[in-house]
Amino acid sequence: MRAASVLEARSIAIVGASADPTKISGRPLAYMLSRGFAGKLFPVNPARSEVQGLKSYPSLGAIGEPVDLAIIGTPAEQVQGVIEEGIAAGVKAFVVFSSGFSEASAEGAELQSRLAKLAQVNDITIMGPNCLGVANSSTGLIASFTTALEETPLKKGGFSLVSQSGALGAYWLDICLRSDLGFSKWITTGNECDLDAASAIEYLIDDAETKVIGLYLEDVRDTVRFRQALQRAAVAGKPVIAIKAGRSQAGAAAAASHTGALAGNDVMYDACLRQHGALRVDSLGQMIDAARLFLFDSVPQGPRVAIMSVSGGAGVMIADEAEALGLQIPPLASDTISALAPVLPVFVKAANPLDLTGNVVQDTDSISKALAAVSADPGNDVIVLFVGLMHSIASAFTDAIAQARQTMHRPIVVIWIGAKEESVAILEKARIPVFRDIPQGISALAAAVRIKALQTAARGAPASLQKSLPPVTTLNVLTEWDGKQLLRQIGIAEVPVGVLLGNEDVIDGLPAPLTYPVVAKLQATELQHKSDVGGVILNISDDAALRVAVARLRQIAEDKGIQAQGVLLESMQAFDHELLLGLRRDPKFGPALTLGRGGVEVELDSDVVTRLLPLDALQIEAMIRSLRTARLLDGFRGRPAADIAEVALRIAALCKGFAEKPELAEIEINPLAIRGSQVWVLDALVSRAES
Amino acid sequence: MRAASVLEARSIAIVGASADPTKISGRPLAYMLSRGFAGKLFPVNPARSEVQGLKSYPSLGAIGEPVDLAIIGTPAEQVQGVIEEGIAAGVKAFVVFSSGFSEASAEGAELQSRLAKLAQVNDITIMGPNCLGVANSSTGLIASFTTALEETPLKKGGFSLVSQSGALGAYWLDICLRSDLGFSKWITTGNECDLDAASAIEYLIDDAETKVIGLYLEDVRDTVRFRQALQRAAVAGKPVIAIKAGRSQAGAAAAASHTGALAGNDVMYDACLRQHGALRVDSLGQMIDAARLFLFDSVPQGPRVAIMSVSGGAGVMIADEAEALGLQIPPLASDTISALAPVLPVFVKAANPLDLTGNVVQDTDSISKALAAVSADPGNDVIVLFVGLMHSIASAFTDAIAQARQTMHRPIVVIWIGAKEESVAILEKARIPVFRDIPQGISALAAAVRIKALQTAARGAPASLQKSLPPVTTLNVLTEWDGKQLLRQIGIAEVPVGVLLGNEDVIDGLPAPLTYPVVAKLQATELQHKSDVGGVILNISDDAALRVAVARLRQIAEDKGIQAQGVLLESMQAFDHELLLGLRRDPKFGPALTLGRGGVEVELDSDVVTRLLPLDALQIEAMIRSLRTARLLDGFRGRPAADIAEVALRIAALCKGFAEKPELAEIEINPLAIRGSQVWVLDALVSRAES
Repeated sequence: MRAASVLEARSIAIVGASADPTKISGRPLAYMLSRGFAGKLFPVNPARSEVQGLKSYPSLGAIGEPVDLAIIGTPAEQVQGVIEEGIAAGVKAFVVFSSGFSEASAEGAELQSRLAKLAQVNDITIMGPNCLGVANSSTGLIASFTTALEETPLKKGGFSLVSQSGALGAYWLDICLRSDLGFSKWITTGNECDLDAASAIEYLIDDAETKVIGLYLEDVRDTVRFRQALQRAAVAGKPVIAIKAGRSQAGAAAAASHTGALAGNDVMYDACLRQHGALRVDSLGQMIDAARLFLFDSVPQGPRVAIMSVSGGAGVMIADEAEALGLQIPPLASDTISALAPVLPVFVKAANPLDLTGNVVQDTDSISKALAAVSADPGNDVIVLFVGLMHSIASAFTDAIAQARQTMHRPIVVIWIGAKEESVAILEKARIPVFRDIPQGISALAAAVRIKALQTAARGAPASLQKSLPPVTTLNVLTEWDGKQLLRQIGIAEVPVGVLLGNEDVIDGLPAPLTYPVVAKLQATELQHKSDVGGVILNISDDAALRVAVARLRQIAEDKGIQAQGVLLESMQAFDHELLLGLRRDPKFGPALTLGRGGVEVELDSDVVTRLLPLDALQIEAMIRSLRTARLLDGFRGRPAADIAEVALRIAALCKGFAEKPELAEIEINPLAIRGSQVWVLDALVSRAES
Repeated sequence: MRAASVLEARSIAIVGASADPTKISGRPLAYMLSRGFAGKLFPVNPARSEVQGLKSYPSLGAIGEPVDLAIIGTPAEQVQGVIEEGIAAGVKAFVVFSSGFSEASAEGAELQSRLAKLAQVNDITIMGPNCLGVANSSTGLIASFTTALEETPLKKGGFSLVSQSGALGAYWLDICLRSDLGFSKWITTGNECDLDAASAIEYLIDDAETKVIGLYLEDVRDTVRFRQALQRAAVAGKPVIAIKAGRSQAGAAAAASHTGALAGNDVMYDACLRQHGALRVDSLGQMIDAARLFLFDSVPQGPRVAIMSVSGGAGVMIADEAEALGLQIPPLASDTISALAPVLPVFVKAANPLDLTGNVVQDTDSISKALAAVSADPGNDVIVLFVGLMHSIASAFTDAIAQARQTMHRPIVVIWIGAKEESVAILEKARIPVFRDIPQGISALAAAVRIKALQTAARGAPASLQKSLPPVTTLNVLTEWDGKQLLRQIGIAEVPVGVLLGNEDVIDGLPAPLTYPVVAKLQATELQHKSDVGGVILNISDDAALRVAVARLRQIAEDKGIQAQGVLLESMQAFDHELLLGLRRDPKFGPALTLGRGGVEVELDSDVVTRLLPLDALQIEAMIRSLRTARLLDGFRGRPAADIAEVALRIAALCKGFAEKPELAEIEINPLAIRGSQVWVLDALVSRAES
């Protein structure tokens, strides 16, 4: 209930409250006075006896009544003193706007860590510093100086936001207040010396007024707590829609300099959000569009879309967009087709998408009849109805749609190009989301369907998350031979039978227990891509060829001045499929598994997927199935199929072993060879941690 | 000048003009009267002496003055008579709203072909039938009954539309008129019995008032004329932005039933648009956003974007979006960094994206200083400036931006979340496009850059287009052996040395002129995927293995009841790379080339590209380079590189041969083997046409 002590405060002191309602130090009070905050307000300003019409107190201690929350915007170096004074006066929570802390300098970081300690020792809650504050539309609490509240009244809604950026938080608030959506809770967390995004999410999960959680992330500090919060949201079925900027190369570099966040870990954020059921989007517009469907209780149970349109062309465009975003356009049931026949003009064939044609202008009754027929079809999860202009019969549409929404048990999403404000208002009152253009509406629909699917998948995830290990300081890359010995020793993976020939060993027939054909591979720690220098010779099938091969590899080492450990001989393993498997320890998120299409072409295709550990076999199976190459493993065009479930079990064991052995810093297996239910490590690059 | 006779008409007769301005037959007159059409209007209605305040005539012949254009909305069966009457009266052009023609029935199609003949024989122009008409904002000509004109005044602009759909045309018009953009010419072509989309495009290319052409396509009838029109637009540098619905499976099926267009030719439309310089988009919103940059003379010369932002997070989001859409975010020049140092707060490092921070509120002068520094940097082609809210200093922004736009020689694109209407108006007056959200603005920018690049590429394309051949009626699929014999005979491709063993031939050593190793392949017309049944045996290196292989292939044929032609033996060809190459004759667009990654995995990856013939070697080289697999051909990770330019020359010769030999219905070469500059047809499926 940490965040609750801020957001549900009933008595609030504003330290340094200004009489000028346009000043940063005057705004919170002015906002709360004008929006009718349902609680007590205490300006604290020793220079005045009255501020904005309220009695002013010289200090927090002088108030003499219980104070739930104090708002502080004083210079950074005074903040600690004010909080200490508040603690002495029994204040339980603080919102600190002041900047000049960890975002500014090392001295600021030191000041901030003292605030963190204060919070810990005294069991109080601090929001910030360097935050834009919070707002709660239910109580009119506005502990913020954001300009986004200057002109718009508070409007209640079911959408709440947690933002690590004040600016993006303000934009979100502005958009929500100018639209019909309103908001419930608005929380900007700033430098998070105490209360972080994870705590805010936890609070919103339990907040009955919050139906959808928006999230703007810059840098998650405690990834385990964060993952737990997302996981709880998934289990509770409370949708989370997140923006994490820094997906691109240029963006990641800019994000790193902006927040000091680690560059290159974007793929980890992506994995973290997705595997705990949160949908990642790229803009506030997308976030708000997707949220709209949840706010209007219009999220379908599945991806099957029935499209109805007054324009054939628009119906086709909707089908294009829907299919591209993974939605399905099932054919109509034959009963539906029969039911539609008398409703449609003779020249129209009932199908999905359904073309109502301009005939609706003459026959407005056909709208509700067609809606009834399509909504009786059990083969779809949602109806998307497209209207363009049609102002002369706008009320026929709004009436028919609103009525259909009441009788049918599936949502209707309306896309209306050129809709009038009053038509939109009528539909939204009937809990029907309206979009103004096709891509916007369909991508919102696809996003909502996707959130449901992600949350369902996340619910099966392993519950316990381990604290990530301290980052690996030195990577000690082993030769393939040494790496495989280590894997064999730990017993977490099958390795082909092999023998290391030392640099001086004479070849006198095939060493036991090898059998022909064999592969010969030059071994050297400096040689991480053996085949690039011709360091791998395959299909050696007799003693003569073996002698030639070993001699050639030794020659390559000599020519290139490679300090070879020797030549590894392995019996060749017949297999049907290959995967790339990577296990590494991200300094922020801890151990993570990457799977991808095997072979050198992995770099061309980027057919890869990464997830954070722990992962169970079912999740790993889902990872494999998400790859394009999964079609090959499934037995494409007559090739033998792999037992993907069994392969996933073996990979799960490998992951568990990796997670439990901190001495293993990194493993890259390429390829992991697969036949049926068996897997072998054909080539591996293993790094040992030296901390 | 066919379309001009409609759009630039100065005297217009409205046949069947109604006195009721809300009726379809009353609207064109009402619209033109209220919008001040700059010409003469003649209602034709024998039942009235006056219509909407104008003298009414009993017939076209009775007008007694020259009439440029007659608008006709009578029942289908009367249209021909009215046009004949008009021809007799000297009318040169007709717009026919009436439906009931080819879209409705066979009888209607017959009526329509008579109109087409009338137009041909009498050298008149007919727009429609079944069209929503046209409008010209310069003259106030509105030969349309669209409801999109009901409430909004005509607003002049530089954007013109050609639409094969009346409904989509109306939505476009509504959006343009409600926005600040307005329009220049609006042309819906309906059933195109005479004047088609290509003619309309030709007209707009020459129309000085049209700066951007929008295009909504359902079914192009004469693809050669259409391609020529697009090509002329590219050469003239007039941007074309097109929507062609039916990209997806469900969409293509719906489009086919909606327009009678051939399903499955979407990839041909895609090729046609792209290779002649038109940009394909998915929605009216995208079309209009991209057009905005051209209309505001704000299209950059290249893809290099300098990002400036008042919020670090928004800058990162812009960089993400820009990079994902192929734009570049180059680093700032060191001079620029030096110039920015005194402008920015001390804690900000000058970089791209540039974070101006909330400091601009205190230091509004920094806006124009920063703009000046960044616009002096020669390393970018456009500045994207992000603002969020900032209402208190809105005029500081609009002043600084408008001033910078005047002094710098590069465009500025503004993305302003929460912008006030008046700020947007000021900026647009200064020819600066403003967008309300990041994805919208950046995708418009990327689209504009892309159109420039597509048109530049298209300008080099071969000028002469051949009429497509009559569609192939029967495909006669040849065995690999027969197909290769045909290719060899025509002399358009290199084929490995091969010998066909008849079913009874005894193997007595390797037939001349083959050399080991060889490949043996079962030949049968019914066997199009030989390897799926084990019908290909590779790497045969001696007589014993050869005997075994041939026996095995014959056994397979016997076991599966395959009518084999024999076994093809070929010397194995060493090669480094493989491509898939397809040549086929589309019934609508004629011959087309498909290139893709070779091998069975082509179906997994969809790393393919299709273009219409004729194609020269440079275009084919560009096709190859657009494939992901091009990185392999370029010599990825130490592999030998192919001589792509030389390979393209050989493929160009193959294309030319295919285009010139109508007996070749279809060729699929998979793989086309490549080493250096050489290419060989390793396996081929050739079909002969039998018409």
